[in-house]
Amino acid sequence: MNETYPTVMENTAPSLAERELAISRHIAAPRAKVYQAWTDPKLLVQWFTPPPYLTVHAELDVRPGGSNYIVMRGPDGVDVPNRGIYLEVVENERLVLTDAYTKAWEPSEKPFITICLTFEDEDGGTRYTARVLHWTAADRETHEKMGFHEGWGIATDQLAALAMKA
Amino acid sequence: MNETYPTVMENTAPSLAERELAISRHIAAPRAKVYQAWTDPKLLVQWFTPPPYLTVHAELDVRPGGSNYIVMRGPDGVDVPNRGIYLEVVENERLVLTDAYTKAWEPSEKPFITICLTFEDEDGGTRYTARVLHWTAADRETHEKMGFHEGWGIATDQLAALAMKA
Repeated sequence: MNETYPTVMENTAPSLAERELAISRHIAAPRAKVYQAWTDPKLLVQWFTPPPYLTVHAELDVRPGGSNYIVMRGPDGVDVPNRGIYLEVVENERLVLTDAYTKAWEPSEKPFITICLTFEDEDGGTRYTARVLHWTAADRETHEKMGFHEGWGIATDQLAALAMKA
Repeated sequence: MNETYPTVMENTAPSLAERELAISRHIAAPRAKVYQAWTDPKLLVQWFTPPPYLTVHAELDVRPGGSNYIVMRGPDGVDVPNRGIYLEVVENERLVLTDAYTKAWEPSEKPFITICLTFEDEDGGTRYTARVLHWTAADRETHEKMGFHEGWGIATDQLAALAMKA
């Protein structure tokens, strides 16, 4: 076995920076409260969507390979179901989920995002960071034009308010 | 929360059958030997590619979220590196890997396959099954035309011979 093999033909994906959208926020609540807002379906439905959208149903099987099923309702009354899976679960610290699979390990119709959440202690509260990774730079751009920053910004305000209250 | 929500607009992916290629074989060797051929890089390089292709390098970090890096060399001397990740690891029983991520959790350029391997006791040996799942029916067809059945057939012969010898 030759250890000095050339790496010819390596498919290099565009840099992560070109495929990432992110939001980071200090939340004046303990990590456990912020994590719980993501993992308890009764809490998630309260903050997950910016109005006039509603989250009307959530099933969250929070373990590696576990599925989630979240139904959002638009102002026109049309329900949009979303299915995904948890890839990594470290309680109160880290949560990774994706829509690339609908359950372990059935590929979805279109892998669009992988969400990497971290919950860190900071100034008596929590540094909450959501990195949203896409497979292509085009998908990142689409997501940004769909209103990522405003939508996730409002949702994160709602998440913070709930965590501080809970 | 209304539990009788309609599931309007659900994106239904094509059935798994349309997106799956599979191979199943009885191997006259214990499960542990067959599993080891997939997880020990010194063994994997011996069986992984049908001639005249060679597997010239393998790094396998076999744990959920761990990466693999496998370099194949064509008869023209050109090296083709492949990067992937393990999604599920149950020693001697089950192994799930994909090229949708190059490491935890960086999306690859093009998610193409998820490989679900099972190793079961059967007639004093092992029932070895590899299900290869694709995101689209078109990718499954491409993979089949690339020679999936012949290629995986020969590789599986080599895997079986190695497991029986080891």
